[in-house]
Amino acid sequence: MNVGVLGCGNVGAALVSLINEQRPAILARTGIDLNIKAVAVRSLSRERSVAVDAALLTTDAHGMVNDPGIDLVVEVIGGIEPARELILEALKASKPVVTANKELLANFGSELFAAADTSGVDLLFEAAVGGGIPIIRPLRESLAAEDITRVMGIVNGTTNFILTRMSEDGIGYADALAEAQNLGYAERDPTADVEGYDAGAKAAIIATIAFGGRVVAGDVYHEGISGITEVDIAFAERLGYVIKLLAIAERFDDGSVAVRVHPAMVSETHPLASVRDSFNAVFVEGRAVGELMFYGRGAGGFPTASAVLGDVVDAAANLAKGTHASIGSFGRCELRSLDDLRSAFYVNLTVDDAPGVLAAVAGAFGRHAVSIHSMEQVLLEDKESGLAKLIFITHHAREADLRATLGEIRQLQAVSSIGSVIRVISEAEGRS
Amino acid sequence: MNVGVLGCGNVGAALVSLINEQRPAILARTGIDLNIKAVAVRSLSRERSVAVDAALLTTDAHGMVNDPGIDLVVEVIGGIEPARELILEALKASKPVVTANKELLANFGSELFAAADTSGVDLLFEAAVGGGIPIIRPLRESLAAEDITRVMGIVNGTTNFILTRMSEDGIGYADALAEAQNLGYAERDPTADVEGYDAGAKAAIIATIAFGGRVVAGDVYHEGISGITEVDIAFAERLGYVIKLLAIAERFDDGSVAVRVHPAMVSETHPLASVRDSFNAVFVEGRAVGELMFYGRGAGGFPTASAVLGDVVDAAANLAKGTHASIGSFGRCELRSLDDLRSAFYVNLTVDDAPGVLAAVAGAFGRHAVSIHSMEQVLLEDKESGLAKLIFITHHAREADLRATLGEIRQLQAVSSIGSVIRVISEAEGRS
Repeated sequence: MNVGVLGCGNVGAALVSLINEQRPAILARTGIDLNIKAVAVRSLSRERSVAVDAALLTTDAHGMVNDPGIDLVVEVIGGIEPARELILEALKASKPVVTANKELLANFGSELFAAADTSGVDLLFEAAVGGGIPIIRPLRESLAAEDITRVMGIVNGTTNFILTRMSEDGIGYADALAEAQNLGYAERDPTADVEGYDAGAKAAIIATIAFGGRVVAGDVYHEGISGITEVDIAFAERLGYVIKLLAIAERFDDGSVAVRVHPAMVSETHPLASVRDSFNAVFVEGRAVGELMFYGRGAGGFPTASAVLGDVVDAAANLAKGTHASIGSFGRCELRSLDDLRSAFYVNLTVDDAPGVLAAVAGAFGRHAVSIHSMEQVLLEDKESGLAKLIFITHHAREADLRATLGEIRQLQAVSSIGSVIRVISEAEGRS
Repeated sequence: MNVGVLGCGNVGAALVSLINEQRPAILARTGIDLNIKAVAVRSLSRERSVAVDAALLTTDAHGMVNDPGIDLVVEVIGGIEPARELILEALKASKPVVTANKELLANFGSELFAAADTSGVDLLFEAAVGGGIPIIRPLRESLAAEDITRVMGIVNGTTNFILTRMSEDGIGYADALAEAQNLGYAERDPTADVEGYDAGAKAAIIATIAFGGRVVAGDVYHEGISGITEVDIAFAERLGYVIKLLAIAERFDDGSVAVRVHPAMVSETHPLASVRDSFNAVFVEGRAVGELMFYGRGAGGFPTASAVLGDVVDAAANLAKGTHASIGSFGRCELRSLDDLRSAFYVNLTVDDAPGVLAAVAGAFGRHAVSIHSMEQVLLEDKESGLAKLIFITHHAREADLRATLGEIRQLQAVSSIGSVIRVISEAEGRS
């Protein structure tokens, strides 16, 4: 079974090394003899994290994909083009494709799925979400008959590292980000990670597989973590919560679906709360199965290559048997507007330390039917300022109502600023 | 696709209800129309946890298995016979079988696998380990190419419930067990759970799948939790550990394998430490993928039925395509003797509160090359007794050396008793 690999970055180089190392074990175990025949790269001279036999390298990606001697194609270039074009060429030539490309799948997944279905070959993508964690296959196969109601994932290791450092070591966002950049966890331009775009692409893929309906990256609402302050972290801890950036895909009783990425307060006893550092985890709730969680390394060359290789073995076995995994064709998911979602909220206000202010603020909540679960008033350390902090946790409320409340609060003379507004995840939410 | 179900206890009844409920969704998603044609029971009149249409019930299990109108057989009777005989009949008739029967697989797995291979049909058993948690399929498929070095599982919900109550609520073993019995988590005779037999069967199955070599229940060393005291729990907490009953399957560099079940001290920052109550989790360590954890409900009618149904859909899809999952034929695993395993140990001694005693005890450790990581001396509350407690944590030591040390310590006049000896799990153990 001759494999052609598109791309030789961290994941590609790790994959080549892993296949060479595991080839005899895979052959003994599955009867499949995997041979890396070529690795397409942009430049032959670039240094690689793991040494790759120079004789395998080629700069002719199209030639490699269309070489009749290549049976199966792995795409680990990333980004939209030329990955999309090359994958389509491979599928049209009836070659199974394994990809780790979340961005491409989240934007052009249905085109690729259709091409794979037409050719009757596999398009597998375990590594696109959660790196080395088996999550796509369990959702597609093990849970094929499960009525999944909600999936909540910590699917971006960079932001989880930053939030863990802020929570456990009391450092600020800027310092934690700088540390993540120094360690190579965060890019020079961290936008894709810290503003939730990366997690949003993964959320779209998770929703598509979990609910069997198409969701694309553009459907996903996202908020990042750059506004989270040390005050929020400290309050969360005092209230028994940990702040995590969650990708949440949920399906309601009417069949509509909502997919979003935002920071959330998670109870410290929730399994997601103990997911630390750059680890990822995906928490699944289903009507029959109850709660499941899948935990592991969400990035890194070897963990990701491990997931790619699992798919390669599966696709090769299917090719040898003349079968393929059925992806199914997905209709579009009906999306529920963010306005209509409900959750509890943490709201952090800075107000004048004066009589009547709390009543005015509470009145604004009340007029928009947002009921308050708990409130705490804290004097600022700088007492000269004449300011105080009001920290509210609301009961479940509609997003639109909370937003209207905040709009009204913003107009109040006594309110000097609205700080963070963070959704609070509860263990059993209404789904009506 | 006509399904015959053997057994209608909690899992069987939940499965019938789940298939009836999910039938249209499964058909829409996979094109497979699952119809429960018959349910074989011992008694037609027994009350069931979930109502089952009486017209489906039959007491003729053999007749049902051999009925040409039945395409696929689900076995949820449990125990060795008649389950073994009925599964073999079904496989011989080229009918795929889905089973949740850990005891049968851990003792007669190779006979069943061979029968399935001979007939070229599926024998799937996701629900046999970890109830609703997808773990067998990820090990078999997603991690098919991964060099797995160790799997550690909390695979018995009853004992995890008992240990959680002891740790979090400070109650003793007997009271926690009684509570588990009242809640229906533990049997009247709790031996299979609390002495580690149930976990041992699951450990044998995990080792077989993870390492691709046959391990049977009788190969598994086991110790239960009935000797764990409140003192051990309190010391564990003070030292930063949580006590869990772990099923551990590991493979060493020479290819030998060790499989065991025993209580273990797990660092409170380890993902397994946060698995509470009756939840299960399986923690997998692989050379490329790093650390993975699979978490969820390890028992209960609906979670288990969900895993069974996932297998049923898969087996039905394979049957329709004329293919089947390859199990592979397993040679026997070479087992490493317990004597040669290494870990750190917690040792709790009651000794005379007199000069020279610590030196005598420390001398015994030293003579057997067991080096001490930390020691704490605690006076008993009853000061009149003249006794003190010595709590040791050792560095990594061979089991045989530790046992020899304890043998010598037991002979010392000043030692009044040896309390618990509990292995301490470290994050990176030597594997030589």
